[in-house]
Amino acid sequence: MPVTEKKRYKRKPKSIDKGELRIIPLGGLGEIGKNLTAFSFENDIIVVDCGLKFPEDDMLGIDLVIPDAEYLIENKSKIKAIFITHGHEDHIGALPFILPKLDVPLYSTRLTAGFIENKMVDARTSYEPDYRIISPGDKVEAGNFSVEFIPVCHSIPDALALAIKTPLGTIIHTGDFKLDPTPIDGVCTDFSAFAQLGKEGVLLMLSDSTNVDRVGVTPSEKTVGQTFEKLFRLHKDRRIVIATFASNLHRAQQVINTAVRFNRKVVLNGRSMLSNMDLAQELGYVEVPEGIIVTSQEADLLPANRVVVLTTGSQGEPFSGLVLMSKGTHRMIKLGDKDLVIISATPIPGNEKLVNHTINRLFALGCEVIYEKSDNIHVSGHASRDELTILLNIVKPKFFVPVHGEYRHLVRHAQLAREMGISSKNVFILQNGDVLKFTSSNRAELGETVQSGAVLVDGVALGGLEGSILRERRELSENGLVVISVTIDEYSHLVSPVQVQTRGSVFSSEDRDTLCKLEDAVNKAIEQFARVPGARPSALPAEIRKRVREVFGRSSRNYPTIVPLITRI
Amino acid sequence: MPVTEKKRYKRKPKSIDKGELRIIPLGGLGEIGKNLTAFSFENDIIVVDCGLKFPEDDMLGIDLVIPDAEYLIENKSKIKAIFITHGHEDHIGALPFILPKLDVPLYSTRLTAGFIENKMVDARTSYEPDYRIISPGDKVEAGNFSVEFIPVCHSIPDALALAIKTPLGTIIHTGDFKLDPTPIDGVCTDFSAFAQLGKEGVLLMLSDSTNVDRVGVTPSEKTVGQTFEKLFRLHKDRRIVIATFASNLHRAQQVINTAVRFNRKVVLNGRSMLSNMDLAQELGYVEVPEGIIVTSQEADLLPANRVVVLTTGSQGEPFSGLVLMSKGTHRMIKLGDKDLVIISATPIPGNEKLVNHTINRLFALGCEVIYEKSDNIHVSGHASRDELTILLNIVKPKFFVPVHGEYRHLVRHAQLAREMGISSKNVFILQNGDVLKFTSSNRAELGETVQSGAVLVDGVALGGLEGSILRERRELSENGLVVISVTIDEYSHLVSPVQVQTRGSVFSSEDRDTLCKLEDAVNKAIEQFARVPGARPSALPAEIRKRVREVFGRSSRNYPTIVPLITRI
Repeated sequence: MPVTEKKRYKRKPKSIDKGELRIIPLGGLGEIGKNLTAFSFENDIIVVDCGLKFPEDDMLGIDLVIPDAEYLIENKSKIKAIFITHGHEDHIGALPFILPKLDVPLYSTRLTAGFIENKMVDARTSYEPDYRIISPGDKVEAGNFSVEFIPVCHSIPDALALAIKTPLGTIIHTGDFKLDPTPIDGVCTDFSAFAQLGKEGVLLMLSDSTNVDRVGVTPSEKTVGQTFEKLFRLHKDRRIVIATFASNLHRAQQVINTAVRFNRKVVLNGRSMLSNMDLAQELGYVEVPEGIIVTSQEADLLPANRVVVLTTGSQGEPFSGLVLMSKGTHRMIKLGDKDLVIISATPIPGNEKLVNHTINRLFALGCEVIYEKSDNIHVSGHASRDELTILLNIVKPKFFVPVHGEYRHLVRHAQLAREMGISSKNVFILQNGDVLKFTSSNRAELGETVQSGAVLVDGVALGGLEGSILRERRELSENGLVVISVTIDEYSHLVSPVQVQTRGSVFSSEDRDTLCKLEDAVNKAIEQFARVPGARPSALPAEIRKRVREVFGRSSRNYPTIVPLITRI
Repeated sequence: MPVTEKKRYKRKPKSIDKGELRIIPLGGLGEIGKNLTAFSFENDIIVVDCGLKFPEDDMLGIDLVIPDAEYLIENKSKIKAIFITHGHEDHIGALPFILPKLDVPLYSTRLTAGFIENKMVDARTSYEPDYRIISPGDKVEAGNFSVEFIPVCHSIPDALALAIKTPLGTIIHTGDFKLDPTPIDGVCTDFSAFAQLGKEGVLLMLSDSTNVDRVGVTPSEKTVGQTFEKLFRLHKDRRIVIATFASNLHRAQQVINTAVRFNRKVVLNGRSMLSNMDLAQELGYVEVPEGIIVTSQEADLLPANRVVVLTTGSQGEPFSGLVLMSKGTHRMIKLGDKDLVIISATPIPGNEKLVNHTINRLFALGCEVIYEKSDNIHVSGHASRDELTILLNIVKPKFFVPVHGEYRHLVRHAQLAREMGISSKNVFILQNGDVLKFTSSNRAELGETVQSGAVLVDGVALGGLEGSILRERRELSENGLVVISVTIDEYSHLVSPVQVQTRGSVFSSEDRDTLCKLEDAVNKAIEQFARVPGARPSALPAEIRKRVREVFGRSSRNYPTIVPLITRI
């Protein structure tokens, strides 16, 4: 678990000082995921982003992780608005859980609002957000804050950076961005807006650190289209299956463009691919020529080399389109040695094995698979080192806080800012829950921390129980359990045979030999117990556990969890 | 799970045909790990390697995975010997489990035998292997086979390729290799031996596929030493901590050499680092100048910049040296902002997150950390594409089988062999359990398959139970469980209150409200049941499960495992 994962501090309720600007990250620092930052001035708070994170491997049974928003809930009356930079899960995914508790206006672009709406529907919450649709160039007043929106390139359309004007100066929050010079939708990162702000003077910049350790510049999204072009030309006789992120509408647009040029029809596959493309078409974010998209039934009537399948599953997600195809269990699409599969993505850390298994299965089906980094079939949505340098150079902020990164990224980005001439004492590596206070436009310092952390969601959002639940699940998952039911009378004599059941243990309930040994051990524990005059009944479970453990000790290194249930009649 | 993971076939006992050569991979194909290949001719079998694999994420509680060796056990009387190519876990790790059942001579170099001996001790088996120490250039007769040993470079000293002479021709098994022109111990991959065999004619080559998808040539181990040199020069005022694989004695040698040049002492840290270095020093595989290695107590008396710590933990293994240091829980070594940490390894797929977390914690301690690929602090031990091409060119085998790779690697390596001019029909992509039969030196075909697969080890080697054990553990790990104990009389009336306990469920046993609902549900189930005349007692658990599930259905998406225990008196 990342170092900053589980920080909980005792809060002492304290009114916010007058005239003080505070930056309070509640998620997204020391991690990639669950971005959530609060900005406060006097009695006004605005919030930027409200994302989720996917669980770590040791969070057994957990569906997703959201930021601990207790600080916001306690200060809910002060919150003027939430601003969303773009529609990725790590920026919007916690809204269904947190927004209903805050109930404040939600500012975003039209497409982002569409993604949020879909999420709210999926979460089956009855809450109706107060959507406020904004466009780049708009200005929103929110108490002491005034927020302007700057278009930036990212791996999803309609991404924004924010210029937050405060009484102490301007704050730039870059959101997630890159400086793609040839974006698919023609919407470039607005250099001149950043340059203008830089000229006017920027108090503080919070900037995306994801790719700080990549040298150079992130290639343009357009380079992927060039690769598609080359691959379509090389494989004229094959059906082509392309897996990518369902939210990367630029990528989808390029697939469609290439399909048009090569006279192929496009089949959309996977639930999120279908719903996102629906949304994008409805709102006009993709250009889809009439008749180019067909159902897989329609595609079955076409020659295979007239078809492109655009599908989910680029991360090897268990029930996604590509994974079902690779297992031969997809209802509509069966792959074989006439198919070319392009995995237009790189595995997110933690997904490497799932992706590898999928690729191996595709090869075993006879497919040709294009998946290697060197094949230029994917580009990142985040700025690399040289782009970060350029932005620092244009904006020249007085203060700098690296955001959106694991701790190592934040350290490297802070180093970069210092190398670019920002005063060392003005560069702050913050962690979730830290409070950076500005009392004037010249002075910032760390204040007391606020409650922050991760809330695990397993159908319901778990509260303080999570520690013990996960510990118990881990024990169960490693060694299984043995349940023992014992019914005794007032003299601690058995009145009925002992009942034993196992789950997930190396000994099954059908292993008669071990079962007998276990029953013997329990019987002995009870006999022993009955002989001790005045023994406290509460001590019996421990006695049974001890005896049962001895049975396992003889043949297994690890003990299952032992649960004795005692009924006295 | 990889496609080939769980293949079990009905075997029909069948005598091996006279004069037929068979190649039978029982592990290592379609996976990286648990290498094990049998070669048979008439009534003689020889075995090459006997390795383990680390468990997949979904193999809960499993310690390691070994090949299903049932085929060998059944044919044990025919086995003349096991030959081990080198001392890595994926080549020797299953020996403590399988060798005692075969009880045949074990051929390996001296160092490899030392690694095996350590494994046998760790496994606490009382079996004493019949070690036969061989050296490159030796020849061993084993029934119809005659085996010669060719030195190859790899990330462990004393690695071998095998030239197996059979009545139908020569087989080359490359083992794991690269063509390092400047190896640390001066032992180059023996080109001339391969060339000589190629000249005489090679029937079949089985070749390492691990890095077939890397273009070019794997850099020499010596380049890492050059990086060490540079880093030691740059960081003269810091303590230096280097984490690497404990079996990479070449790497350790380079750390020692650099330490000597920069007048630093070396602290060895981590159990396997200590035992491997002990072994290597005893057998003369590392040159350690007198007095260069010190204990950490001795190091504490030296200035920090006179010390190098060589430690385990480069894969983020939970209780390894570097991980304990990163958590601040190492007993002897505390890290801070005066330390440089070099992670001289790349994460093995599946370990990325563990390694990232370790790096983040090190940064949080203030350490400078060198870990990026571009820093040239690690090289692979496996040949890249151009080296594989060179070997194919030198050996020019008539038949080719790619080994030691996931399915995608095998496909790419097979493609490469075809591009190099080996006839398509003579290139075989085999899977574990396949049998490649040669009836003459001109003809090979796939025969019937033999039993193969993975045996999971959880303290004990699990047999047929593994499927159900893992399924139950998965269920428990995802949703926890509820145990219900009920004591009823002959009329199915409760004679004592219902007992309920939970483990790992989102509702704890302290959640009185839910407990009451659960008890109510059970009571209702029993009342309902008691009212049905002639209801079969065996139907009661299902009734209880149904009612209890309804309680959870109201507030949780996922049901815990429900275990009712009924006692009748």
